[in-house]
Amino acid sequence: MQNIAALVFPGFELLDLFGPLQMFGMMKSDFQVHIVAESKAVVESNAGPSILAEVDFDDAIDHDLILVPGGMGTRQEINNTRLINWIAKAADEAEIIMSVCTGGALLAKSGVLDGRRATTNKMAFEWVRSQSTAVNWEKQARWIEDGNLFTSSGVSAGMDMSLAVIARLHGKKQARKVATWSEYEWHEDSSYDPFAKIHGLV
Amino acid sequence: MQNIAALVFPGFELLDLFGPLQMFGMMKSDFQVHIVAESKAVVESNAGPSILAEVDFDDAIDHDLILVPGGMGTRQEINNTRLINWIAKAADEAEIIMSVCTGGALLAKSGVLDGRRATTNKMAFEWVRSQSTAVNWEKQARWIEDGNLFTSSGVSAGMDMSLAVIARLHGKKQARKVATWSEYEWHEDSSYDPFAKIHGLV
Repeated sequence: MQNIAALVFPGFELLDLFGPLQMFGMMKSDFQVHIVAESKAVVESNAGPSILAEVDFDDAIDHDLILVPGGMGTRQEINNTRLINWIAKAADEAEIIMSVCTGGALLAKSGVLDGRRATTNKMAFEWVRSQSTAVNWEKQARWIEDGNLFTSSGVSAGMDMSLAVIARLHGKKQARKVATWSEYEWHEDSSYDPFAKIHGLV
Repeated sequence: MQNIAALVFPGFELLDLFGPLQMFGMMKSDFQVHIVAESKAVVESNAGPSILAEVDFDDAIDHDLILVPGGMGTRQEINNTRLINWIAKAADEAEIIMSVCTGGALLAKSGVLDGRRATTNKMAFEWVRSQSTAVNWEKQARWIEDGNLFTSSGVSAGMDMSLAVIARLHGKKQARKVATWSEYEWHEDSSYDPFAKIHGLV
């Protein structure tokens, strides 16, 4: 069993979080999800619905993976020192580090991406890139794997990235099974990214 | 502004709910989401994370759309008379009725699908079909539109169906915009369903 620490903050994007958690959640005997926030309370998403955080930044959790979603709330959280410090510490202790969409900006601010390759949302690319010049940002990619770092493009790309993480940990056959159970067509090629062009980046 | 009443119950499937709510949530000036459950409390999903229901079955809400997700919890809720009665009443008052995955079983049990065409999850197809012989179940479809009824296949198919609902209400161009903002490749053809074959239904 591996523990996933999934970060939430006010204004997080629903699918950035729940797309990945759907995929990991289909392997309940292998992954346990812990929702982490600054306080143990319900946290409102950008779209409105609120989720319960049962773990806060002061709790010790023996996590193996961390997941950092994006969303409009990142514009506030980028200046939240407690949150950025939590990410830096949690990433240092994690076997695998994941971000979806503008969650990449929070990872970059924490220094976790320094000297590494990463990607992010295509519509907010310049804002995310402005958070750190120490990162090798890649414009065209569904997701980027650099060692134990997995960063994905916008919103729905997090599902493809999560299946790649499952493939890393449990093999590609298992990842394909999870996709099929979800009736999801996994984009297995991480370089497949039509949205970089649609959004004018390439 | 249109109101969406989104039902939750213990053991609901994360992406059945949050895939659609991601799409509607990208049009916050057009759609407002209300999470409805038997009690105003946090409700645990099948994968673990809990969501807050701010509306219960006794509250009057002036909703325009209802969304019924599936998940393992449907096996219990199919015998929950209060929940089935709420669906029947809420559907009767709704302009558009949606189910994702095994949420179709709950709609069927409520009588809402009687004499109508519908589809559901491909792995649980026989169990869902057994809930009502009065429904014209279709094995191969990403989603089915029959008048004001939208029923989708398993889990991720709810996103494609929701974009079809947005297209119905706001035009196909707008639905394509929402998909692009989410970096999601919308399957626009409702008859596209590779999973019916994969899961041995056709």
